[in-house]
Amino acid sequence: MRYKLIIEYDGTPFCGWQKQQGQLTVQEVLEQALSTAVRESIVLHGSGRTDTGVHALGQVAHFDCQQEQNANRLRESVNALVRPNPVVVKAIEPVSDDFHARFSAKQREYLYRIQNTPYPPALETNRVWWVHTSLDETKMQQAANMLIGKHDLSTFRAAQCQAKSPVKTIDEISVSRIGDYIDVRIKARSFLYHQVRNIVGSLAYVGSGKWSVADFQSAFEACDRRRGGETAPACGLYFVSVRY
Amino acid sequence: MRYKLIIEYDGTPFCGWQKQQGQLTVQEVLEQALSTAVRESIVLHGSGRTDTGVHALGQVAHFDCQQEQNANRLRESVNALVRPNPVVVKAIEPVSDDFHARFSAKQREYLYRIQNTPYPPALETNRVWWVHTSLDETKMQQAANMLIGKHDLSTFRAAQCQAKSPVKTIDEISVSRIGDYIDVRIKARSFLYHQVRNIVGSLAYVGSGKWSVADFQSAFEACDRRRGGETAPACGLYFVSVRY
Repeated sequence: MRYKLIIEYDGTPFCGWQKQQGQLTVQEVLEQALSTAVRESIVLHGSGRTDTGVHALGQVAHFDCQQEQNANRLRESVNALVRPNPVVVKAIEPVSDDFHARFSAKQREYLYRIQNTPYPPALETNRVWWVHTSLDETKMQQAANMLIGKHDLSTFRAAQCQAKSPVKTIDEISVSRIGDYIDVRIKARSFLYHQVRNIVGSLAYVGSGKWSVADFQSAFEACDRRRGGETAPACGLYFVSVRY
Repeated sequence: MRYKLIIEYDGTPFCGWQKQQGQLTVQEVLEQALSTAVRESIVLHGSGRTDTGVHALGQVAHFDCQQEQNANRLRESVNALVRPNPVVVKAIEPVSDDFHARFSAKQREYLYRIQNTPYPPALETNRVWWVHTSLDETKMQQAANMLIGKHDLSTFRAAQCQAKSPVKTIDEISVSRIGDYIDVRIKARSFLYHQVRNIVGSLAYVGSGKWSVADFQSAFEACDRRRGGETAPACGLYFVSVRY
């Protein structure tokens, strides 16, 4: 039997999603809780990795087990077992054997949150990137618009990225201000390593006036990471959802 | 010179606002930082106390000092000095000598946040009250409406309350659902001890169907705390703002 999980976590205490010897990771915490709950050794397949400090509102994963499970009861057992780690299974449902959390994904959505205030965050510490220079979200949206569609995104690709090609298709990218916060939402089938954080770092240059929209365009068109802006910190990034 | 401060804090690690020997309190952390920054012994007057675990988005306080201050520079010094405590001064401004953070207040606003999901919070741990039973926010608003105006609120008054009278005027009370969250906002000149948390606890009884709106009304009209619902936990409560 194959089951699909929707998972929320506060990335702050975790060394990211993927299991690593001797580190606290979301995958390991969940695999242990699931294995205890179903009394089988469970391997969890995530829809994508997240780095240290990156949060998830709707990470998706699947696992196989021999025994049929009562999905709601299993969710409750797992949520009790993972405590006090800040991770929770929002939903569990049986899926067909050809469902794969990673390979069946049609679109992923990420949210990047900036707190744009002269003072640092108190309630939102570790949940936002604090930018104290005033940002112009309209200019940021203008720059972001040129990324929509299929493009070589080498300027926004981390050196460690293992994707075969730097060409990716961005379906949507929106920059919106809600009071003191600026939310950048990006939807795409898949992403290069650090793509969202590198895009947001460059958009912040445009927002603060360090770069014009034309500067952003030449950096983007140079297809060279050395021309890009800084990498925005992990703590502002949320893996929102996956569409199948 | 008198200065007014607007203050945000995550109440989780604090034993509330008010200074107490040997406890970590918001008032003490700020008084120490201010005293260091202005090189005078500073006494801070808050617009109202908050309990252990209660948050603030816009607590207001004032203090007097001999020396005139550059308000923005002082804010930055204080925000550096309070670290790593999750408290931040959002704004400082000079005010006239007859301004008093507590006694000049015309209206205070509180927000109470409920996460209404079958699974517990991960990202919002210590930031919301988790209620897993499905809540009907329309019925909660119906019950809340009868509290608007000037009433004896004994049913929602903690035993330890030191106010002379149980009669208070509630200006506004709104219950709104935003996805999985229910926000209860209450505006009034002043509040009884635990008033918001006791009102929300009783509203949750109505929302879950444990009480009808008529049950809420008889509890309210009994003017007896023993007839009220439970006290909602501190972690869902936010002191939003003060109007002068």
